[in-house]
Amino acid sequence: MAHFDLTDATCIATIRTLAADVVGKANSGHPGAPMGMAPVAHVLATRFFNANPNNSKWFNRDRFVLSNGCALQYILLHLLGYKLSLDDLKAFRQIDSLTPGHPEANHTDGIEVTTGPLGQGFANGVGLAMAQAHLGAVYNRDKFDLINNYTYVFTGDGCLMEGVASEAASLAGHLQLGNLVVIYDDNHISIDGDTAIAFTEDVSQRFLSYGWQVIGVDDGDSDLEGIYNAIAAARKEKSKPTLIRLRTTIGYGSKLQGTHGVHGSPLKADDIQSLKSKFNFPSDQSFYVPSETYAAYRAIASRGAELEAAWTTLLGKYGEAYPKESAELTRRIAGKLPEGWEKSLPVYKPSDPAQASRKLSEIVLTAMTPKFPDLLGGSADLTGSNLTKAKGTVDFQPPSTGLGAYSGTYIRYGVREHAMGAIANGLAAYGGIIPFVGTFLNFVSYAAGAVRLSALSKHQVIWVATHDSIGLGEDGPTHQPVETVVHLRAIPNLDCWRPADGNETSASYLVAIRSRETPSVLSLSRQNLPNLEGSSIERAARGGYVLYEVEGKEDLTIVSSGSEVAIALEAASKLKQEGFKVRIVSLPCWSVFDKQDKEYKLSVLRSGAPILSLEALSTVGWQKYSHEQYGMQGWGASGPFQKVYEKFGITGTNIASVGKKVISFYQGRQVVSPLDKAL
Amino acid sequence: MAHFDLTDATCIATIRTLAADVVGKANSGHPGAPMGMAPVAHVLATRFFNANPNNSKWFNRDRFVLSNGCALQYILLHLLGYKLSLDDLKAFRQIDSLTPGHPEANHTDGIEVTTGPLGQGFANGVGLAMAQAHLGAVYNRDKFDLINNYTYVFTGDGCLMEGVASEAASLAGHLQLGNLVVIYDDNHISIDGDTAIAFTEDVSQRFLSYGWQVIGVDDGDSDLEGIYNAIAAARKEKSKPTLIRLRTTIGYGSKLQGTHGVHGSPLKADDIQSLKSKFNFPSDQSFYVPSETYAAYRAIASRGAELEAAWTTLLGKYGEAYPKESAELTRRIAGKLPEGWEKSLPVYKPSDPAQASRKLSEIVLTAMTPKFPDLLGGSADLTGSNLTKAKGTVDFQPPSTGLGAYSGTYIRYGVREHAMGAIANGLAAYGGIIPFVGTFLNFVSYAAGAVRLSALSKHQVIWVATHDSIGLGEDGPTHQPVETVVHLRAIPNLDCWRPADGNETSASYLVAIRSRETPSVLSLSRQNLPNLEGSSIERAARGGYVLYEVEGKEDLTIVSSGSEVAIALEAASKLKQEGFKVRIVSLPCWSVFDKQDKEYKLSVLRSGAPILSLEALSTVGWQKYSHEQYGMQGWGASGPFQKVYEKFGITGTNIASVGKKVISFYQGRQVVSPLDKAL
Repeated sequence: MAHFDLTDATCIATIRTLAADVVGKANSGHPGAPMGMAPVAHVLATRFFNANPNNSKWFNRDRFVLSNGCALQYILLHLLGYKLSLDDLKAFRQIDSLTPGHPEANHTDGIEVTTGPLGQGFANGVGLAMAQAHLGAVYNRDKFDLINNYTYVFTGDGCLMEGVASEAASLAGHLQLGNLVVIYDDNHISIDGDTAIAFTEDVSQRFLSYGWQVIGVDDGDSDLEGIYNAIAAARKEKSKPTLIRLRTTIGYGSKLQGTHGVHGSPLKADDIQSLKSKFNFPSDQSFYVPSETYAAYRAIASRGAELEAAWTTLLGKYGEAYPKESAELTRRIAGKLPEGWEKSLPVYKPSDPAQASRKLSEIVLTAMTPKFPDLLGGSADLTGSNLTKAKGTVDFQPPSTGLGAYSGTYIRYGVREHAMGAIANGLAAYGGIIPFVGTFLNFVSYAAGAVRLSALSKHQVIWVATHDSIGLGEDGPTHQPVETVVHLRAIPNLDCWRPADGNETSASYLVAIRSRETPSVLSLSRQNLPNLEGSSIERAARGGYVLYEVEGKEDLTIVSSGSEVAIALEAASKLKQEGFKVRIVSLPCWSVFDKQDKEYKLSVLRSGAPILSLEALSTVGWQKYSHEQYGMQGWGASGPFQKVYEKFGITGTNIASVGKKVISFYQGRQVVSPLDKAL
Repeated sequence: MAHFDLTDATCIATIRTLAADVVGKANSGHPGAPMGMAPVAHVLATRFFNANPNNSKWFNRDRFVLSNGCALQYILLHLLGYKLSLDDLKAFRQIDSLTPGHPEANHTDGIEVTTGPLGQGFANGVGLAMAQAHLGAVYNRDKFDLINNYTYVFTGDGCLMEGVASEAASLAGHLQLGNLVVIYDDNHISIDGDTAIAFTEDVSQRFLSYGWQVIGVDDGDSDLEGIYNAIAAARKEKSKPTLIRLRTTIGYGSKLQGTHGVHGSPLKADDIQSLKSKFNFPSDQSFYVPSETYAAYRAIASRGAELEAAWTTLLGKYGEAYPKESAELTRRIAGKLPEGWEKSLPVYKPSDPAQASRKLSEIVLTAMTPKFPDLLGGSADLTGSNLTKAKGTVDFQPPSTGLGAYSGTYIRYGVREHAMGAIANGLAAYGGIIPFVGTFLNFVSYAAGAVRLSALSKHQVIWVATHDSIGLGEDGPTHQPVETVVHLRAIPNLDCWRPADGNETSASYLVAIRSRETPSVLSLSRQNLPNLEGSSIERAARGGYVLYEVEGKEDLTIVSSGSEVAIALEAASKLKQEGFKVRIVSLPCWSVFDKQDKEYKLSVLRSGAPILSLEALSTVGWQKYSHEQYGMQGWGASGPFQKVYEKFGITGTNIASVGKKVISFYQGRQVVSPLDKAL
């Protein structure tokens, strides 16, 4: 039985008035939702939430996600004593502040995941809950319930309209994630006005259909006991995620409460004054925090410190009882990779048989998996095509399904690419896990919203993106990406790899796994690729290198990636027969190559002869690395892949002829490397 | 009461064996679903479907969408007598055939929308149904029920797992689309195996929660009457879309029926033989179509021809009774634009006040709307930000909501970007409608799967994509696109516009509306932009032009787009004061500029002096049009927009200084236009 008193009312009023002040000072932001969700935020933070504000990285902390990302989270972090001052709140939405427009992971102390783009946080929360279920199942032992935190997600109507949240909710129900509590701010208002205009579905029934527990709280504005009981019931239900449908009044306390007027615009000055008077706060003071509010929240902080201390003691005892598991767990918590993991990466000779790079990827995964428990992967229903399931792995499933166990490392995502990407962000954010996910490269685009947030949030997520060009053949243009790779190449802090053979595939995994704050997309072929003379893991790991060198001055360099490198070599060989010297540069990863020193880059893509790029994708962007470009000018075609390559002239014979055209055009011209530039 | 006899059984067996043969001959494809869905396909085609195979464009035809796109649709089209021969079926998945891997709109006679990428067809179907509801409400009159077709969608588990379908289903329920019948092939199998591994939600309950009618048919393999009654009941329900949950056996008749072994791989030769024997078909013949099957389907075709003839008569009488409406409707059916529509495009002088290009877009929409009923637009819950609602427009809503009418032209999409894009494809595919949709540019990425299909399918969809750079300011990097425009620029047959002022905004609408087979994305600013000396609709409509020319030989050309053009001008003016001659080129649309003649292009981006590109986005791709690039090297930042521009050096002062660096670097070098190339 919970007790609430005047202090609680004061705390809630503090959150509400701070929200108005924070948004008011910035003259930008969303005051309505924090004002409406202040009561549930307060009840959760003070009565249930296990975390240590002095160490925001304590591993077994409860995770909190504000899917409808707004100022509320900053206010809570400040009150709880995270590294966020009142001045930081005053700098809300200002340049270089700790309080940007929407919460960003790895930017502000205590923020788990980046939210704001709707639906993402919800799906991240599912990932965080899956991470707990997995690590708990792997490491917990009798009397050592080391990993047992909850994940709490606040969400609004907007998030619940997004498909990415629907996908994640369906999977969360299937996975029976009893550690996941989602609190739905049912305030009937979205930006365009009353939700009656576009969102009239029965949300509760929908979540019941997914297999969730659904609890309603009719007066989320003031029924603190109701809120308490709902959260308590949610925690009690161990085999289902819970949705608490909390009826609130957006902008509670404002003159415009309950309207979309308080959704995305600051309150007017007189409204803020009247709000403060309503709560018996000094109406002439801004950013006013009563001492009893601080006292109440700092008490929570000390409880958190005690919780962590007790947990650390338990971990110590666990180390005595289970030294092997403990060593592994503490390594993973510390974010270290298993000793010598890279030794398992396969190395190839040119005489090794040609294989598809998706198959080469499977070989890497199978080789790494036994000594690399951090890898938690899956596919969006394309396991047999993506080849993401390493031999011997068990499915991550609720035990009651009889299909696997929570300790399993292979996730069946279903046909849910966007949720898969966002869930992987949650898995990575939890810590101790390197998530990889699989689909056709073309359908990484379905998850673009999540992919950009991996990169912005520095979540190490590895995409196994197979069937990466017209080389997928028969499925045709609906499935053949031409624009996808350039999109990925333009995302900051994302490495997009297109390996040409076995060694380059190993190199892409090497760099992807070493890059602990960078997501990677491995763009892999459906068709077989020969192992190339001149490739090596070390060379490819630089992002680009001279695969085939000529003696003396070349007539042409062809720079290429992935499945087209072998075709470039074929063209070079044909041109050699005609007396032309043609170098071949393999450029599997632009962003990694860009990071090499200038001298190296200028030695690879050197001045003196024209450079022709070759890729069975859009040529957009290749102008940075070449003088001339050959690639797809439009959509692909359906047919056996060799025929499709022929149709678009991506054959040794045609590229040799294109190469001659290029050589002749530049004859007598001074040719400067495209990398020799002013900026 | 329906009657089914031996002929029906023969027809169904024909579809099943043809599916096995078609996929078998291609040695690629998905035989299982067509074999399982043969009964419902047959019942629908022969008992309900109103269409005229001799004129696949008859306006009031029922629309059919195979969301789980596969060979089934080709087989039906062939049997019904569309322009698809048995030889075309034999060329399934071969180069340049009419039968590519997945059905493509505007490629094969009778295909309405492109499917295969899962979930898209479902949402397209919602768009097709909305189009009927809208046009029916606008043009039907008492005794003139001219537009009253149904939309039938076949869907599988895969589509229903996709978020885009969830979003569309929720909206369809809200919109009470009684003309939409979705038949769910509940075969319990997806590529990874039994749906028990990832898809265990209660689909029926979910659709009930959306406000759909749900009807179950337990034996979809042989209960033809049950199927008939379900479709009849679906048609009868006028105020709800219907989901028919049809329990079928995937690959029915194969030795592997009911397993994922028949999902995505051809049947083995002996399995095909045994299948044919099972149905008493000659086991040694391929592509065998009994004459009674042809007879049954060709009878349907004559019924369709009669239906169209009667409809044409009715349309004639409508013309007498309602000459104005009739003229407009027939114009729209013919795909013609309203006479003189372009005269309403606003023209600006430099003295006109600075405005945000999102506002300029609103002015265009408001000016065009009164005489342009074809425009059917909306926003994903950002109406007040995207400024997509022209004054005076009525919401497209079911009358019972009291919030609008089906004749309304403004669609409240809710926060459902992906469905919005896919629904717009359906609206465009229906005919007579030019759909436009609105969201932040950043969230066009959520809809990437639909956008690429607009382009591939030649659907004219116009995206009003506002808040298009760091210029959105306070919302910060989570909402600031840096990679989005280059992604869109790399999509074939898509025009991505980034207008710099009022005239360029008008130009972007001019070209976007004239391009009847090309989608466009208008990338628009949140912040105010001055009207530029030298811009005009005609010049901007060429995609790129010299905005500011110098006398004699220039020292530098700055090429820019959108909100940065005015900054480039500022830099030029500063450099002028220092004695440098700087030309300014505005390049609002790459793909349109690329289509101009080479002489023109070389006159705009000419040899002789270096060209520097400037855009507050990723520089990827600008190397095609410039020697040096200035733009975003990483993510944006949260803050007032002027401060954000300053932080990243995108100011007149800094660009002037960058320009000097570029001028000095190229001094004494021979500078050739980046467009002067061999290929």
